[in-house]
Amino acid sequence: MTEDFPLKRDERIDDLQIGGLKIIQNTKKFCFGMDAVLLANFAALDIVERDERILDLGTGTGIIPLLVWGKTLSKEIVGLEIQEDMVRMAKRSVHLNQLQDRIKIVEGDIISPPSEILPNYYDVIITNPPYMEDKGGLINPTAAKAISRHEILCSLEDIIKTTKKYLRSRGKFFMIHRSHRLVDILSLLRCYNIEPKKIRFVHPAYGKAPNLILIQAIKGGKPHLKIEKPLYVYKEEGDYTQEIYDIYQWNKDDN
Amino acid sequence: MTEDFPLKRDERIDDLQIGGLKIIQNTKKFCFGMDAVLLANFAALDIVERDERILDLGTGTGIIPLLVWGKTLSKEIVGLEIQEDMVRMAKRSVHLNQLQDRIKIVEGDIISPPSEILPNYYDVIITNPPYMEDKGGLINPTAAKAISRHEILCSLEDIIKTTKKYLRSRGKFFMIHRSHRLVDILSLLRCYNIEPKKIRFVHPAYGKAPNLILIQAIKGGKPHLKIEKPLYVYKEEGDYTQEIYDIYQWNKDDN
Repeated sequence: MTEDFPLKRDERIDDLQIGGLKIIQNTKKFCFGMDAVLLANFAALDIVERDERILDLGTGTGIIPLLVWGKTLSKEIVGLEIQEDMVRMAKRSVHLNQLQDRIKIVEGDIISPPSEILPNYYDVIITNPPYMEDKGGLINPTAAKAISRHEILCSLEDIIKTTKKYLRSRGKFFMIHRSHRLVDILSLLRCYNIEPKKIRFVHPAYGKAPNLILIQAIKGGKPHLKIEKPLYVYKEEGDYTQEIYDIYQWNKDDN
Repeated sequence: MTEDFPLKRDERIDDLQIGGLKIIQNTKKFCFGMDAVLLANFAALDIVERDERILDLGTGTGIIPLLVWGKTLSKEIVGLEIQEDMVRMAKRSVHLNQLQDRIKIVEGDIISPPSEILPNYYDVIITNPPYMEDKGGLINPTAAKAISRHEILCSLEDIIKTTKKYLRSRGKFFMIHRSHRLVDILSLLRCYNIEPKKIRFVHPAYGKAPNLILIQAIKGGKPHLKIEKPLYVYKEEGDYTQEIYDIYQWNKDDN
């Protein structure tokens, strides 16, 4: 199937190494990173059978819907994305995997999603937002420089505000973000009554400070936070830890 | 000197292994634990010469003032304690070390400290509060059972409210607490404009979830959190890590 699928300039097809799933990426644009894989895995571990309706805010290439579907076989996954070219490419990836009846890519803004995204409807909302302060997470470095501190805070707040509106009561919210935003994230979630329930810190290596945080929060949940055991990415020798191999479903000898 | 010092029933004198400092503890009452040592060390690393006025909220045996003095030689350290018998014992420890001109133990309530504690005066406020939910941190297990969830939150808020009142602008706040209270702590600190700036998670061992958090916050500070590298207490073999030996200033071969 892959060989017959028409690719555009600078595009390539990557095997997601789970259930034969594949994704189209444009090598000149944003390609998904480890954070998307870690987030999809963190969320999938917590998604149960009755969590049928899943919304991914800022889906990009559609990596999160594809990985989450691969791990949970959920019935209805929607990926919302503002960039038209990414929407088209993500839709083509959904077709490539023949998942049109499970995954829907919708073009629209997180701040005011189109009407086909229904309020108080989703069992699960997932987001791997652009980290803003870091150029790597932004399409346009010129725009990145223009974003002020105040706007950065608004943006995180916009995501949480939208989550509050579209997540059903007791629904689950999953996000990955930079660890230095921890105070902003926890304070805003509590303000919007989406109570942080689980945190997992991602450390580059054993003795290193965490640089990423995986967060699970419940809309209307009671206060009690569980901090999970650390996720270490590299062993001291520079090789990935066994857990990273497991998350990627890589065979260690192949890599 | 120690041998001549009059001890009461169930009391003992412990060597703090720093600058010859000693402390009186009552073996039938609360004796200081590792959290006090970790907190004193965490704070002392951040206390500079111009941080002359230090207040310890809920000083107990006086362990924090003694250790902080041992590490910083600060000019004016006040320990506030509500329990009369602990106040008397802490005062005797101060005398035992002949530090009456540096450390003052004051009897009083954190919620409404006596007038000798001056508002907007302290460069540093430190607290190792009772953890409330855990009987080990409370003098009276019967009272512990009576504390409702709501009251527990009030109590943490009372400490932060008092910190806000007595810390000078840009003054430093240091606390150790259970990690599952992270959301409460960070949200309350931000609410009271004491911005969390540094967190260090304390893990029982490498692959274990953190159970304690060391926090530094600045009154009126700008938002930007630094998460420091993890502090591991035990090595996998059950022995303390080198950092714990260093903090206690123990010679590894002696223990």
